[in-house]
Amino acid sequence: MRLFERKDIEKVIRLDTDLIKKMETAFTSLVEKETTMPPIMRVDVPDHNGEVDIKSAYIKGEDSFAVKLSSGFFNNPALGLPSANGLMILINSLTGEPLAVLADEGRLTDLRTAAAGAVAAQYGSRENSRIAGILGTGSQARLQLQALTLVRPIEQVFVYGRKREKALEYKQEMEQELGLQLTVCDSVQQVVGQSDLIVTTTPSKEPFIYGDWMRPGLHITAMGSDAEHKQELDASVMEKADVIVCDVKAQSVRLGELRSSLKEQDRAIELGEVTSGRQLFRQSDKEITICDLTGTGVQDTAIARHVYHRLLAWEGVTDERREV
Amino acid sequence: MRLFERKDIEKVIRLDTDLIKKMETAFTSLVEKETTMPPIMRVDVPDHNGEVDIKSAYIKGEDSFAVKLSSGFFNNPALGLPSANGLMILINSLTGEPLAVLADEGRLTDLRTAAAGAVAAQYGSRENSRIAGILGTGSQARLQLQALTLVRPIEQVFVYGRKREKALEYKQEMEQELGLQLTVCDSVQQVVGQSDLIVTTTPSKEPFIYGDWMRPGLHITAMGSDAEHKQELDASVMEKADVIVCDVKAQSVRLGELRSSLKEQDRAIELGEVTSGRQLFRQSDKEITICDLTGTGVQDTAIARHVYHRLLAWEGVTDERREV
Repeated sequence: MRLFERKDIEKVIRLDTDLIKKMETAFTSLVEKETTMPPIMRVDVPDHNGEVDIKSAYIKGEDSFAVKLSSGFFNNPALGLPSANGLMILINSLTGEPLAVLADEGRLTDLRTAAAGAVAAQYGSRENSRIAGILGTGSQARLQLQALTLVRPIEQVFVYGRKREKALEYKQEMEQELGLQLTVCDSVQQVVGQSDLIVTTTPSKEPFIYGDWMRPGLHITAMGSDAEHKQELDASVMEKADVIVCDVKAQSVRLGELRSSLKEQDRAIELGEVTSGRQLFRQSDKEITICDLTGTGVQDTAIARHVYHRLLAWEGVTDERREV
Repeated sequence: MRLFERKDIEKVIRLDTDLIKKMETAFTSLVEKETTMPPIMRVDVPDHNGEVDIKSAYIKGEDSFAVKLSSGFFNNPALGLPSANGLMILINSLTGEPLAVLADEGRLTDLRTAAAGAVAAQYGSRENSRIAGILGTGSQARLQLQALTLVRPIEQVFVYGRKREKALEYKQEMEQELGLQLTVCDSVQQVVGQSDLIVTTTPSKEPFIYGDWMRPGLHITAMGSDAEHKQELDASVMEKADVIVCDVKAQSVRLGELRSSLKEQDRAIELGEVTSGRQLFRQSDKEITICDLTGTGVQDTAIARHVYHRLLAWEGVTDERREV
């Protein structure tokens, strides 16, 4: 069995259209192929304000699949450590042998989550969306914005975070990195009122976007809520939406935005139904659309396989050079 | 994060009274301490006759805990590979950081399962049990017998396996290794009729021990059934038992022998209640006792921590030698 460290993994993977394509295929496989995707396992470590989530998915016919551990330990920042950590284990589907441990420290989860945001925007937002609104100022706020620029002609960004200094840091970094014009707003409502598409990236326990603020043509990707106690969108937002898409409906009902909007669950469709062409997401420029992402094992399996193959190829190249 | 391979792990751990003690403490912690032990997660790989089980447990106050993957891929023997494989990941309880991957290939699961068998025998079987009966001839049949010899004055062994040549191999190996006298029987009933304590170690889907065969004083540890489709003891055996103990009742009801004997579940007690002294297991030489083991995350956490500390200590010793 091989062990790959984060520094090696980062050499072979980045947020690009190739990765977005992989995520699209992963969602499609959920509806087109026989897939084993057990419910998320959670190990709580209450006395240290921590939890480890375990996800996995096997897609019939693929020669490997991943089991992913991702941890959130929320006392870490006070210790000078990131809250998130994790690793993926890639397993041979024919024999059960572990092929590799990808000790990515949560990096692959960050990337596959951002890439899913791009897929959501690609099908849910208006094609000519030029103004992005970002709620939150953490690492997903950064990656989700970068992901949007890969699928939509983003020119301008409105951002809000509870800590203004973090929002200002975010503005500076993103302007430099992506060459966009960013504006730090004083309220969530200011962001929502000026944006074509919005991504919510917070660990909020209370909704902070309301139905009254909705305008025709708006798209929201809500990726923050992934646990029973989290929520970003008020039920009135879900009511106003013309189309609601989730990555996995059962998970959204348990851990995502549908949990507080159970009466919308019958009309909600899954992202895989959209990427496979079985259902349409946005059908006109007037519609209000929402995509709720809770994170799925098929995404983990897809990115772990992708990275593993690239790592092997990269080693092959390195070996050839050595031989010369 | 560290990666330890099986060959290194095997240098620092074996089935001994120290390990049995660790398992006893692990079971006790289930009733005496605050413990997080989520239900087992299973990833099925039906087209290759395989499955991966994921177990974990965090015991409040301990500075690390394990997440264990164990796989059973039942086409492997035809490929010349063992069915079982797996690894453990030890996680820092304070920060969520992965400390080590123990790439034990399932060896630690084998050892902790056998050590639990010793704990079961220690509390359930008569102290002067000299005759062991073993059903099955695989690796647990070997380890469980070895475990029994560490807690009971075993002199003689009766064994039955469906394939007689495997039973003969088993006899030869065990006689050599443990210096005991073994007899290969022609039927399960012959084994049961002559033994003081019995361990069932098979993946059987049908019960093969019946209530009519029970005699006063007999103890049975049933460790084979750990899935919805497995069963070793007929319901009539459970009825005849004076005391029924399980490692975890909820798991035995779902995956173990209580699944087919639901009406016995109210009187069944847990092994941790016994090891902690809160409940008695065997109270007289006349009683018929049963212990059903399905395998628990606290055992995995206990053995992973134990091995990790020994590996670090062993490296320390090696380093000192290097320095000399």
